[in-house]
Amino acid sequence: MSEARLTGPVRIVGVGLLGASIGLGLRAKGVEVILADASPTHLAIAADYGAGRPAAPGDVPQLVVVCVPPDVTADVVASELAANPTAIVTDVASVKLAIYDDLVARGADLSRYLGTHPMAGRELGGPMSGRADLFVGRPWVVAAHEGISYRDASVIDDLILDLGATLVELTPEQHDRAVALVSHVPQVVSTLMARRLIDAPHASVNLAGQGIRDVTRVAASDPELWVQILGQNSAPVIEILRGYRDDLDRFIDALVDLEAPGARRRIAEELFGGNTGVERLPGKHGVDRRYASLIVMVDDRPGQLARLFNDVGDAGVNLEDLRLEHSPGAQVGLAEIFVLPEVQERLTDELAARGWRIAG
Amino acid sequence: MSEARLTGPVRIVGVGLLGASIGLGLRAKGVEVILADASPTHLAIAADYGAGRPAAPGDVPQLVVVCVPPDVTADVVASELAANPTAIVTDVASVKLAIYDDLVARGADLSRYLGTHPMAGRELGGPMSGRADLFVGRPWVVAAHEGISYRDASVIDDLILDLGATLVELTPEQHDRAVALVSHVPQVVSTLMARRLIDAPHASVNLAGQGIRDVTRVAASDPELWVQILGQNSAPVIEILRGYRDDLDRFIDALVDLEAPGARRRIAEELFGGNTGVERLPGKHGVDRRYASLIVMVDDRPGQLARLFNDVGDAGVNLEDLRLEHSPGAQVGLAEIFVLPEVQERLTDELAARGWRIAG
Repeated sequence: MSEARLTGPVRIVGVGLLGASIGLGLRAKGVEVILADASPTHLAIAADYGAGRPAAPGDVPQLVVVCVPPDVTADVVASELAANPTAIVTDVASVKLAIYDDLVARGADLSRYLGTHPMAGRELGGPMSGRADLFVGRPWVVAAHEGISYRDASVIDDLILDLGATLVELTPEQHDRAVALVSHVPQVVSTLMARRLIDAPHASVNLAGQGIRDVTRVAASDPELWVQILGQNSAPVIEILRGYRDDLDRFIDALVDLEAPGARRRIAEELFGGNTGVERLPGKHGVDRRYASLIVMVDDRPGQLARLFNDVGDAGVNLEDLRLEHSPGAQVGLAEIFVLPEVQERLTDELAARGWRIAG
Repeated sequence: MSEARLTGPVRIVGVGLLGASIGLGLRAKGVEVILADASPTHLAIAADYGAGRPAAPGDVPQLVVVCVPPDVTADVVASELAANPTAIVTDVASVKLAIYDDLVARGADLSRYLGTHPMAGRELGGPMSGRADLFVGRPWVVAAHEGISYRDASVIDDLILDLGATLVELTPEQHDRAVALVSHVPQVVSTLMARRLIDAPHASVNLAGQGIRDVTRVAASDPELWVQILGQNSAPVIEILRGYRDDLDRFIDALVDLEAPGARRRIAEELFGGNTGVERLPGKHGVDRRYASLIVMVDDRPGQLARLFNDVGDAGVNLEDLRLEHSPGAQVGLAEIFVLPEVQERLTDELAARGWRIAG
């Protein structure tokens, strides 16, 4: 493992999922980590867990990372700036402009503050769900402003690089608009879809397939946290939701008056637009044409997937992605394997030769 | 493999994904399958592919399965009823009431017709994407009506059971309302979310995580097909979309006037409602509390997953589900393994003992 760029000590205020994960990641790099939390219990858990040591009088941190809920972040950042006059202070809240404006209004020392937002998380919270690798390979946004010097800001770069994340520089406005689109609005859209299920007959929900499961997965997220996030980023969220609502109204109107000239064409255009939008997403889980897939039937018994991936490994093929499909009650599951197109045919032959039922 | 219940021959009209999959599944059971398709090319591919043989003069099918697009299904069902006076005729279109009403209006012989809908599919279409196991363990809805005798209807049961699916009996109305909720409305909601991405800056879409990928996955589906499905099931889809739109309006209003008394509480209640809705979904991919998960770091190299699942298998543990997480550019991926809660601790220890980095 490469040496840490941070000299430390790093003080982490708030040891939930993100705070604990930052502590674990920095400790793994040998950086001294000081922990603080309003909850003595969380603090003790995080310390026992190896995320750092409790704060002590006389601590002089190089960097303070504020990892508290969005609605108290500005408060805590301001008090940490005051309490640690030589430290650079950052936060990891998922909204940036409201916090920045709040700090400006308070007359906080912005020459030592630079807000950030790591694009990483889990549906779980709390120190016990912390992971040293939570940020590995993930974008970590730095909400750039003019008030801090390049040299002082470099400490934030060090934090991000030490944790294995990818630094992305945006203005607070750009950041908030971006997360409104790719995170906050999808949360609302998913939540409202899931609400439709509340009073549905069993016969209906029992027909649910992977489609609605995917659309509603994030609707399981923590309401308390999301009220704060949406509340602090309401302007761009409202703007995007209104555009969504206008599309929805047009869609409903076209469905209501299907025989009107052009109604079906309007619906088709909306659907084609959806295709186009999905294709803009990076990474493996969008409509990714970089990989070919084959579907293998796997008995629902211990070791079967092991045997499958053994055979894939023996074939010298790297699994790029995988989707498991298993219907309750069925004795067989389907493993959809994503590989580079050039190896698909060979892998299909090799697996078939080893007795696997290739279903597609 | 158990013997086929159908005596056959079974005539399949339309050899796309569903038609070809039914042919492959029945051939695997030794049932004689006769194929017909408007496209000679598709027909030849499906026959070469092993889904059955092309139709010939004098064929007398026991059962005709119509697998053509929804907007021509009633046409084809009517002509198949006329052309095969001794056969039971079914279809697999994803809407049922419009087709049934159309057949009633045509005065078709409903004593030999029973519509069905297998809840199975893939984003891909065409005979080459057919899979003999496509229906294994999946619900297959029979749209019951009074016009057909129990004895004649049993041929449809045989078809469904021969293909390994689970028979679900609903009225055409119940079916259409159910799929409007769990399939058609989620398609619209996902499509409209994806449309928001079309003109988004790169900097924004590059921050996309798993959340928006899941919400928009089905937006990649075939627009031509969906125009027909939504057009033929517009009434229940409109009703549900209007309920969704009313929720959305309330949500936007609450965000616009955040300082109004109770505004934040209303938002929190919407979000809690989403939690409740997701919990109603069956199966593994909802918020499923039947399984515990652990996250293992896996190097992005051939054979690594094989080694992991080997070790899981050696531990005698059955993998209930799996989610792979891999950030573009990262040298390490995360495998989230879902197992029965009682084995989680033991598996964690065993994997750690074998040198795996357990991240959570």
